[in-house]
Amino acid sequence: MRPMRWNADNKTLTIVDQTKLPVELVEKNLINYEEVAEAIKILRVRGAPAIGVAASYGIAIAAWSLAALQTAEFKAEMLKAMDVLAATRPTAVNLFWAIKRMTGVFEKFAESDNKTVAAALEAEAIEIEKEDYQLNLTMGQNGADLIPDGATILTHCNAGALATAGHGTALGVIRSAVAQGKKIRVFADETRPLLQGARLTAWELMEDGIDVTLITDNMAAHFMKAGEIDLVIVGADRIAANGDTANKIGTYGVAVLAKEHGIPFYVAAPYSTFDLSLESGDSIPIEERSHDEVIRFGGCQTAPEKVKVRNPAFDVTPNKYITAIVTEKGVLRAPFNESLRCMSCED
Amino acid sequence: MRPMRWNADNKTLTIVDQTKLPVELVEKNLINYEEVAEAIKILRVRGAPAIGVAASYGIAIAAWSLAALQTAEFKAEMLKAMDVLAATRPTAVNLFWAIKRMTGVFEKFAESDNKTVAAALEAEAIEIEKEDYQLNLTMGQNGADLIPDGATILTHCNAGALATAGHGTALGVIRSAVAQGKKIRVFADETRPLLQGARLTAWELMEDGIDVTLITDNMAAHFMKAGEIDLVIVGADRIAANGDTANKIGTYGVAVLAKEHGIPFYVAAPYSTFDLSLESGDSIPIEERSHDEVIRFGGCQTAPEKVKVRNPAFDVTPNKYITAIVTEKGVLRAPFNESLRCMSCED
Repeated sequence: MRPMRWNADNKTLTIVDQTKLPVELVEKNLINYEEVAEAIKILRVRGAPAIGVAASYGIAIAAWSLAALQTAEFKAEMLKAMDVLAATRPTAVNLFWAIKRMTGVFEKFAESDNKTVAAALEAEAIEIEKEDYQLNLTMGQNGADLIPDGATILTHCNAGALATAGHGTALGVIRSAVAQGKKIRVFADETRPLLQGARLTAWELMEDGIDVTLITDNMAAHFMKAGEIDLVIVGADRIAANGDTANKIGTYGVAVLAKEHGIPFYVAAPYSTFDLSLESGDSIPIEERSHDEVIRFGGCQTAPEKVKVRNPAFDVTPNKYITAIVTEKGVLRAPFNESLRCMSCED
Repeated sequence: MRPMRWNADNKTLTIVDQTKLPVELVEKNLINYEEVAEAIKILRVRGAPAIGVAASYGIAIAAWSLAALQTAEFKAEMLKAMDVLAATRPTAVNLFWAIKRMTGVFEKFAESDNKTVAAALEAEAIEIEKEDYQLNLTMGQNGADLIPDGATILTHCNAGALATAGHGTALGVIRSAVAQGKKIRVFADETRPLLQGARLTAWELMEDGIDVTLITDNMAAHFMKAGEIDLVIVGADRIAANGDTANKIGTYGVAVLAKEHGIPFYVAAPYSTFDLSLESGDSIPIEERSHDEVIRFGGCQTAPEKVKVRNPAFDVTPNKYITAIVTEKGVLRAPFNESLRCMSCED
């Protein structure tokens, strides 16, 4: 299962419209960068690694569609396209990481003709997608060794194939453990307000024949106390240098509960999720989303129309609640700033 | 605001159909005990104290409608009615407490004619409702003294006027604090799966002009960490002799989070919520409700149709997470079995 597919013949991106799952599996063809930006903003494509890949393709689409312009205008329009894509969502750092990498290619080919630039950007986007898929496989393997046979695993939100170029981060670890022949059960938090757990995680695990049970977010504590959860694994949107991790709202609560019940709490994320410019998670920007997401689902109203609402899309889990961070380069353990320093040296 | 109204002229019970809130304020007239039982089962009437009151009226309705029968048949049918009402929901002990009290009256009038029995049962149901309303006012007063001026209070589910004969337990404490002139803000957990927080708590506080902000259940930890919550107050469905408290699913998680953040966690419940026959909360029966409640809301599907689901309607919060239990007889503090023993002596 892949959440997007590059069409090299006509330079467009076909995505699975994740807002329509699980009721319908609908593909949507994105033909200009504005459509890519909109798809990221309204969560047709979501998940930190996937939005990095989608934004890269958005830049490639922009380059091909603008290639007929004069060089100066081409450059100005390309910078605008990158700005528009960067302004879609503030929390996941993979977006900025991917745009920075694409900007590097754009600058490297500053003296070339527009079509050469476009071809180089297309090649880079394809490479970013391919790398993400490969590193998810490696991360899955690294993480699978932490998963005991027979484990029941709680996950939050969707850190799955749909959130990446494929295979998934947290769900990639689960898939790799299943591929090792381990018997695994998954509990999926539904993950209000946008229900990525109910709509996406439940759906993609069922598609793969992995045993999944859906619960509402507020049931996790009950099942931990009942001894039904052996470990927790989640993805990440941005990780500070000390290991503090921003992820979907509700992750922090699950981490506190896991600690209280003596249950290991793992984060699985590619190395590109680290933002080493931030000493701690306190300065990670947290996106606040709309009132409407909380007061209704689909067409169904769930609260008084005019009620005041808060809707932070992410929270930050301090490093002390995190047992280990699984990456494609290996498994980091506390103190994370030291283990990260070692890992960076190896680069 | 009262969730039900006895019609003495035609011996029926008019309730607010809470399944229709907040979109519509619809009243429903219940004309036989089977309709009362159904209303409790499908949560048209809900909240531990309110279902005790409703069941009492259900017994009064049964008595009036069966009064024309021969004595032996009347008695048999009345026992059946009480069994049907007792079988509606397993967790809230107030239901069994109220039915037991009605049974006491029924037995006391064993030698009387049917109409005398019916009149005595009606009078007892009216008395149970009146007492519940009064004790909520007293409890509110007792609890309000615990609430600092300027506090932001998190509550879970609906322990409000709608959950009682009026005023409310947890929300009664808040109302009494507001009546004392304190400036209070409330955060309401939406309380999946049935959204009593979003649909009922938000609605009734807005009706009363009390400052309320709606959040999804999984946001509570984030706002506690941010220092935005000063205390938590919730209701209860059954409290064991050691203070372990069964309440709406998600309460236990909130209690753990409150402890982790050094935030007081209060339970407000009438003395009839205590089940002193249970030493601890381990033996409180937990109702499991339907698959459908988790995979959809209203007509809107939120998860794959065939996904496996768990749906416990309640959880148990061990006494160590509870700062104090507010009752109409006073405020209990740990160790609860001792403070309860003192309170029982005073009876």
